[in-house]
Amino acid sequence: MNSHVVDFQPIGRRGECPADEPLIECARELGVTLVNVCGGVGTCGRCQVVVLEGELSEVTSRERKNLTAEQLAQGRRLACQAYLRSDCRLLVPPESLTTPQRTQVEGHEIPVRLDPLVRQVTLELAPPSLGSGEGGEDLRDDETRVLEGLRVQHEVVAERIDIDVLRVLSPRLRAQDWRLRVALRDGEVIHAGAPSGPLLGLAVDLGTTKIAGYLVDLESGETLATEGIMNPQIAYGEDVVGRATRAQRSPEDAARMQELVTEALNGLAASLCEAVGVTPDEIVSAVVVGNTAMHHLFLGLPVRQLIRSPYVPAVRDGVEVKARDAQLDLAPGAGVYLLPNVAGYVGADHVAMLLATETARARGVVLAIDIGTNTEVCLANQGRLTSTSCASGPAFEGAHIEYGMRAARGAIEYLRLSEAEAGYRCHYQTISDAPPVGLCGSGVLDALAEIRRLGIVDRTGRMQEGPGVRAVNGEREFVLVGEEESGLDTAITITQKDVRELQLAKGAMRAGIQLLLEAQGLSEERIDEVVIAGAFGSYINVESAVAIGMLPDLPPERFRQVGNAAGVGAKLALLSREKRREAETLARNTGYLELSTTTEFRRRFAEAMGL
Amino acid sequence: MNSHVVDFQPIGRRGECPADEPLIECARELGVTLVNVCGGVGTCGRCQVVVLEGELSEVTSRERKNLTAEQLAQGRRLACQAYLRSDCRLLVPPESLTTPQRTQVEGHEIPVRLDPLVRQVTLELAPPSLGSGEGGEDLRDDETRVLEGLRVQHEVVAERIDIDVLRVLSPRLRAQDWRLRVALRDGEVIHAGAPSGPLLGLAVDLGTTKIAGYLVDLESGETLATEGIMNPQIAYGEDVVGRATRAQRSPEDAARMQELVTEALNGLAASLCEAVGVTPDEIVSAVVVGNTAMHHLFLGLPVRQLIRSPYVPAVRDGVEVKARDAQLDLAPGAGVYLLPNVAGYVGADHVAMLLATETARARGVVLAIDIGTNTEVCLANQGRLTSTSCASGPAFEGAHIEYGMRAARGAIEYLRLSEAEAGYRCHYQTISDAPPVGLCGSGVLDALAEIRRLGIVDRTGRMQEGPGVRAVNGEREFVLVGEEESGLDTAITITQKDVRELQLAKGAMRAGIQLLLEAQGLSEERIDEVVIAGAFGSYINVESAVAIGMLPDLPPERFRQVGNAAGVGAKLALLSREKRREAETLARNTGYLELSTTTEFRRRFAEAMGL
Repeated sequence: MNSHVVDFQPIGRRGECPADEPLIECARELGVTLVNVCGGVGTCGRCQVVVLEGELSEVTSRERKNLTAEQLAQGRRLACQAYLRSDCRLLVPPESLTTPQRTQVEGHEIPVRLDPLVRQVTLELAPPSLGSGEGGEDLRDDETRVLEGLRVQHEVVAERIDIDVLRVLSPRLRAQDWRLRVALRDGEVIHAGAPSGPLLGLAVDLGTTKIAGYLVDLESGETLATEGIMNPQIAYGEDVVGRATRAQRSPEDAARMQELVTEALNGLAASLCEAVGVTPDEIVSAVVVGNTAMHHLFLGLPVRQLIRSPYVPAVRDGVEVKARDAQLDLAPGAGVYLLPNVAGYVGADHVAMLLATETARARGVVLAIDIGTNTEVCLANQGRLTSTSCASGPAFEGAHIEYGMRAARGAIEYLRLSEAEAGYRCHYQTISDAPPVGLCGSGVLDALAEIRRLGIVDRTGRMQEGPGVRAVNGEREFVLVGEEESGLDTAITITQKDVRELQLAKGAMRAGIQLLLEAQGLSEERIDEVVIAGAFGSYINVESAVAIGMLPDLPPERFRQVGNAAGVGAKLALLSREKRREAETLARNTGYLELSTTTEFRRRFAEAMGL
Repeated sequence: MNSHVVDFQPIGRRGECPADEPLIECARELGVTLVNVCGGVGTCGRCQVVVLEGELSEVTSRERKNLTAEQLAQGRRLACQAYLRSDCRLLVPPESLTTPQRTQVEGHEIPVRLDPLVRQVTLELAPPSLGSGEGGEDLRDDETRVLEGLRVQHEVVAERIDIDVLRVLSPRLRAQDWRLRVALRDGEVIHAGAPSGPLLGLAVDLGTTKIAGYLVDLESGETLATEGIMNPQIAYGEDVVGRATRAQRSPEDAARMQELVTEALNGLAASLCEAVGVTPDEIVSAVVVGNTAMHHLFLGLPVRQLIRSPYVPAVRDGVEVKARDAQLDLAPGAGVYLLPNVAGYVGADHVAMLLATETARARGVVLAIDIGTNTEVCLANQGRLTSTSCASGPAFEGAHIEYGMRAARGAIEYLRLSEAEAGYRCHYQTISDAPPVGLCGSGVLDALAEIRRLGIVDRTGRMQEGPGVRAVNGEREFVLVGEEESGLDTAITITQKDVRELQLAKGAMRAGIQLLLEAQGLSEERIDEVVIAGAFGSYINVESAVAIGMLPDLPPERFRQVGNAAGVGAKLALLSREKRREAETLARNTGYLELSTTTEFRRRFAEAMGL
């Protein structure tokens, strides 16, 4: 039997595969786990790949059913249906990968002209001399020697050396035999390192629940390492208001929260650096984005005015500080830039998302949504932006849900119900194909959509008596996975209370969307594109989100899931001065709709809770 | 008996005194203690005052003997000889005051056009509003509100607010009912305080042995408080080489020394502020001067290259850092400026002294000497400056001298010997008129001059047998104050070893002076003026210093004692941008003569040790 070479991008797994194996099997053998809810029979449509080069087998009827004509024309295929006909290069979109294979930090990248704030050059200097040697007397101090070297050897006019660089410069010059690599920013030397090495930057998306870090080569623009960790402040409250309230009541708690997050970022930087064999003191520039509360708590800014009407931030414009003034252990003179905020509850992460999705440049009507513990929504109407914030809560991240869990081993990430003899059968994909132990956010959303589709809950969210529904302590719940199949010693269910939590969360989001549209005199049908950002938003089944009324009922092709766009925005601000300026302009030009002052909000919210 | 009102300046003591009491008694009654070595008989010439206004009794023959015609023409008189004839205003030069009355930090001030780097304005702002009130919606963040207030209310364009100010701004705005006083520097808000208060600066002369601090009102130029303290680093070595060597060998010692001095400066700032009822967080600007070792140890800069040939500083140009980066607890965004250094052993304190004495502007040949544990000497030849440094050691400060002591209660500060029946009689002035317990620097110098004048030591410094000289453990010593008169249970003596220590100290200084002159082809007689700076230099009897060959043998009127000129220079750099620029130019344009490479040095040094 003949075989072909297949190359899965952007993961970069490559190997030889037999021509009589479906692609989904080839992928598995090469360590690429694709989502597979239907068991490979071509009904769930989740194992999509895009052909970049080479030829695959003919499109099957199952593929025609699950993919639009446009998707097929773009080379999109189902990996369970297609076979190799030649050597192939295939792109695996993040939404086709099971959770552990996505780093939860990836986002759709956009091209950017490299123009970082920091550059580096290498110097070879003459040592000082009393004049007995050949060079004559040269008693210049070390700082002058370096600054003059920059001018003479590189025509770079630098005016000063950061004090923390000065503190290490003299012994380093002598240890390195007067050869030095210096990083420069705006006329200041901010790092003095070994004669050769990369110019590194750190981008951070500081979420309420998760923190994503990216180590970036500032000269090539390449992302060298990515990593996601939990925000350790979670012990002080799951949502922003909880944490900010703690911080406002107790300066000690505020200080401890600041310490926790800076320690976490220092650990993240160290871990990212370790992955590529460098140390954090080589990082010369950092960009951090987060919502206003995360932004304020990280910088040690007061939050009282943020959580009390009229909810104003201490600072809106971008903030640039020395890394040391934010307790970050990077290169001695490194700076940290925090993107600007828009308003009290629309922060720098939102601006970063807008930057990465280029929402302000889009024609027509675009809705950009970053779903998280706090959900920010931006409506772009012919380039005019208005944003708002909805307190969607942590339900989408698995919290406050009976069998909710984080996206870890054994979590059901995708789920379908089919009618069976004795009630319903549940088809699902778990993380790492392990026995199911709970539901992560996307699984919860699928579960709600399915029990609504099958009438197990009605439009008001009330669970009906019937097959699979049982009462525990007077409360109804629907059994998704029976005790015998579950990886727990109990069944996995979705409860009436879970349904109510999800209705509150999605209702807040939908009401926000509707009020933004109404303020512009637009109806939902006028939306040309819905951009869904954020880790959770990237994994959800958009059809499920539409089915439960979380998102407007628009044709599937109008939705675009872009992954962690806030992280991508942070990287852009790291790589380009122009993008940084663009972010400042974006923040200033984005209008803000305060929902709490809109009398319409309560009514809309109540309506939007329906399923 | 009639009486008149007398006003002693600059101390500011004023009161009514009878016309039949000599001025020295009037002064004492008003709490002004003038130096009185001869017991008020007009022979020591130390109790000089200058008439500013009013009429005194006729000049006596004793005054004619002790004062030059020029001094008399300037209104200089001896307080033990003169009486009031009308209400008078008198100036008491520092050298006429006993030590406790001089703060040890005073210096001759020069006029300066006020142009400090920091200014302050007061804002009255409107609070943010959701729009229900009269002002309409105004959800600007606190930073923008302040920056726009500056622009609109004061036409001041500020671009940013220091991060540490942002950390306190929001609650302060609300606590002060939106009234705020802000201090600005170069487009940055560096302090946000109570609606009214002074704009304060701190000047520090960071000496090897002593630290002098000045609290200055930046808007009036007035010095509000002054204080001198000991440098606590002294536990790590008495001289700069000792301390720098410790720092180079042990990073822990270096860190501890830095900590000691920054703690001392924070304590000094707190004490100065307490004296005028303010707190150090109101200090918006600081200037620190010190020799290169003190400069480097304070900033935490490496010192290895400073104490090894070819002895180069880590940095020569002025260094400006945030106070927090130098561990100083001042206003949140305050800066600390360290004046530039000239070379490895000619530091910022020397530059400050040159700035305060305006040596570079003088015509002719001027020698400016700052005597301390390290003595820096600058030769100005028609405005062209060359400096050098001599390791004079701590002998002049009372260290390594058998009965040497700091200028504290009971220290003999001035001394004369007269021949008496049974040998010699010692006339002296002690600090606080207490029984003598030792000799401070100026007393030591007087003692050496007197025993040389009377032939008790010969030209080589060898002590002769004779009256008053005794041998203790095989070493000769001269008894200055007998056991019965002394405040100790022993006699106070000057030993052969003391004489040798002083010869080494003064020899190094004189050799430096001679080599500087020779490098310019000048002889000592060509010197038009000798400016003597530094606390010690201000208290010494110049005649004694000339007598022992420490200073060139020139007419008395060519000497000018200017007090702590380094401290005055620090104040100038605090009050004037122009003076700061002048200091940078001075440092760059001052040549440096390295004595250790001069083969002449050893010979000159050996010669200059003679008395």
